[in-house]
Amino acid sequence: MNDMLRAHADQIVRAAIDAVLPDEATRRALERVALTGRVRLVAAGKAAWRMAKTASDALGEGIESGVVITKYGHVQGPIANFQCFEAGHPVPDENSFRATEAALRQISDLTENDTVLFLLSGGGSALFEKPLVSAEELKDITAQLLACGADITEINTIRKRLSAVKGGRFARLCAPARVEAVVLSDVLGDPLDMIASGPACPDSATAVDARRAAEKYALRLSADARALLDVETPKALDNVHTQITGSVRLLCAAAARACEALGYRPILLTDRLACEAREAGRFLGAVARTHAGGGQALAFIAGGETVVHVTGQGLGGRNQELALAAAPALDGLAEAAVFSVGSDGTDGPTDAAGGYVDGDSLAAMRALGVDAEAALADNDAYHALGAIGGLILTGPTGTNVNDVSLALIRR
Amino acid sequence: MNDMLRAHADQIVRAAIDAVLPDEATRRALERVALTGRVRLVAAGKAAWRMAKTASDALGEGIESGVVITKYGHVQGPIANFQCFEAGHPVPDENSFRATEAALRQISDLTENDTVLFLLSGGGSALFEKPLVSAEELKDITAQLLACGADITEINTIRKRLSAVKGGRFARLCAPARVEAVVLSDVLGDPLDMIASGPACPDSATAVDARRAAEKYALRLSADARALLDVETPKALDNVHTQITGSVRLLCAAAARACEALGYRPILLTDRLACEAREAGRFLGAVARTHAGGGQALAFIAGGETVVHVTGQGLGGRNQELALAAAPALDGLAEAAVFSVGSDGTDGPTDAAGGYVDGDSLAAMRALGVDAEAALADNDAYHALGAIGGLILTGPTGTNVNDVSLALIRR
Repeated sequence: MNDMLRAHADQIVRAAIDAVLPDEATRRALERVALTGRVRLVAAGKAAWRMAKTASDALGEGIESGVVITKYGHVQGPIANFQCFEAGHPVPDENSFRATEAALRQISDLTENDTVLFLLSGGGSALFEKPLVSAEELKDITAQLLACGADITEINTIRKRLSAVKGGRFARLCAPARVEAVVLSDVLGDPLDMIASGPACPDSATAVDARRAAEKYALRLSADARALLDVETPKALDNVHTQITGSVRLLCAAAARACEALGYRPILLTDRLACEAREAGRFLGAVARTHAGGGQALAFIAGGETVVHVTGQGLGGRNQELALAAAPALDGLAEAAVFSVGSDGTDGPTDAAGGYVDGDSLAAMRALGVDAEAALADNDAYHALGAIGGLILTGPTGTNVNDVSLALIRR
Repeated sequence: MNDMLRAHADQIVRAAIDAVLPDEATRRALERVALTGRVRLVAAGKAAWRMAKTASDALGEGIESGVVITKYGHVQGPIANFQCFEAGHPVPDENSFRATEAALRQISDLTENDTVLFLLSGGGSALFEKPLVSAEELKDITAQLLACGADITEINTIRKRLSAVKGGRFARLCAPARVEAVVLSDVLGDPLDMIASGPACPDSATAVDARRAAEKYALRLSADARALLDVETPKALDNVHTQITGSVRLLCAAAARACEALGYRPILLTDRLACEAREAGRFLGAVARTHAGGGQALAFIAGGETVVHVTGQGLGGRNQELALAAAPALDGLAEAAVFSVGSDGTDGPTDAAGGYVDGDSLAAMRALGVDAEAALADNDAYHALGAIGGLILTGPTGTNVNDVSLALIRR
């Protein structure tokens, strides 16, 4: 492994994620919310605990009570007056439903003078859920959607209609109370109705869109579920005020600043990457190979969220697949690395945040009898990268604003 | 369609291709060849006629005789003292074999004082061929390799061993005469043994590589063919002098100059793009969407040769698929276009050189009842783009140095 490039990669990852941690973003947003009457907090998503902690620290007794719903391992301690729940992600489980019921009980007795402070972050789709179909069928449909490579827009379009809280339905349940929503965005381009399936946002997708997605992937649905796809979601909500406080744009900008500080000229390619993970890796690998040895220190930056079409039995995530797929293009180069990391610190069902490869990676794998192509074919990037120290491990970060991928070329 | 962006795209394509036409490149190379004794010319590939015509114009009676083998439609007239053949591409046919026999007759009686002037360009793999298996099996194996998405390296590794002229075997047949090879490169990174399957170049691939590729794609092979995979190709040749005269690097550089002349800041991403065509299109579409409206005129340039895994029944080519796949990301934008073109002017089995899309493309398709996603799924980019004037038509250009793809963003 190229020690200098690896050290730089780790520094860039750290700086980029630090810049989008939810604390500061939430604090700024709280200065602009109007809190009237009784204030009840609902926080859902991978960043829910940190956003709620920030709100509690800032507002103290100003918040009467709160329900926090986040992913397993993401509650970092109790918060006074709040109930904190951990639940299943990406597939919702009984704890998701129990926590959501607790949240709904909290907002059931409010008047038009009262306020629901709703702190939303990525992962909320699974964590904040009251299904209108059986838990088993919801699990099955979610698993089908994840496995078939549906994008997050399609997944949410379907899930909203199978839910009592998504697609604006939560805000309608809050009425007549006002909803002050603070949103840490994890959907490219920040479409509010898609972030965590938009519990407090009018739904721009229609029943026609939902049926089209169901047909596209030949989803297996019960008759009840099929009927729910036709029930429309709210198209207007007059009791909601929303602020977006973070997004992948900030993640990319922070990565660019970190690159610059290390002497690399940053070139932002996109903050809306949404193609197949391994092909994005091949693209960035080709970019790195072209510029390696050219005498310039460059950092090509691509933010977004790629997709993986799972066909193998291995372990990995989109960031790890992206990195592994870049390895052949880099093979033998002394000046180039490609790495990719999820800002939430958990890439796929693994304990890694992402992956790193450079010109030594393929040789290191060969020496250990690891076949990079076979690993990719089996969606097993975690073990291939793990064998050569190519995993990026940050632990859960408490934020979630998509991923950032870099091709780094040193002078 | 955005008329200004389309006009710029056409100008950039024209300027890029003009810069890599073979005439000038061949002329330069001819100044550095040593022609001794009797000189016989063999020219093979999509650019063979133009390279041979340039040599004939430059050297006249200095060349005793010549055989020119190119793709159908690419002979643009007789050349004095030369026999010109047109033959099958990408699948070799009887005319390929007949022409190759004529070329071999020409070099069979030479001495060590004599010279074979060998002008090679892309497409030579199919056009210059004397198979060691039946024509039917060669056709079948080639079709299998193209359909399964094998890359050009894998295709050539297999084909060399089924051929009497590839993998250095032609140069060995020329011996004791010297071979002066002039090569217009169509393989990324210019690996000489891969360009047209390297008839005059020692073969770096081994029988092990050939067997591995055959297994990877589960090729159906006769026992004879399987045995041929084990026969080694020449690993050293002392009678050959080679010059590379053109490559995708020049194509990208010329595109960059044309962009600059039109007021766009060119950013070269890569000249070694080799990923799936549609995913490259999605990547470039995301790049365009990110920068559109940013107030800068930018041109992101990616040269190379993408691949298509054919699963549908439609008509298209890798450049057309790349463009069509970029359309959703551009939808509604007034400032951005993505286009992609093969420098040979023929993309896949179509009369188009490539495709162009901008922010109006998806709406134009919708209005005509054309479903872009369905067209992609059926590998039918040709008809989807054709319906909205999104094909780039140059006619055969007489050169072949891979493809160039651009994301163009106007101020």
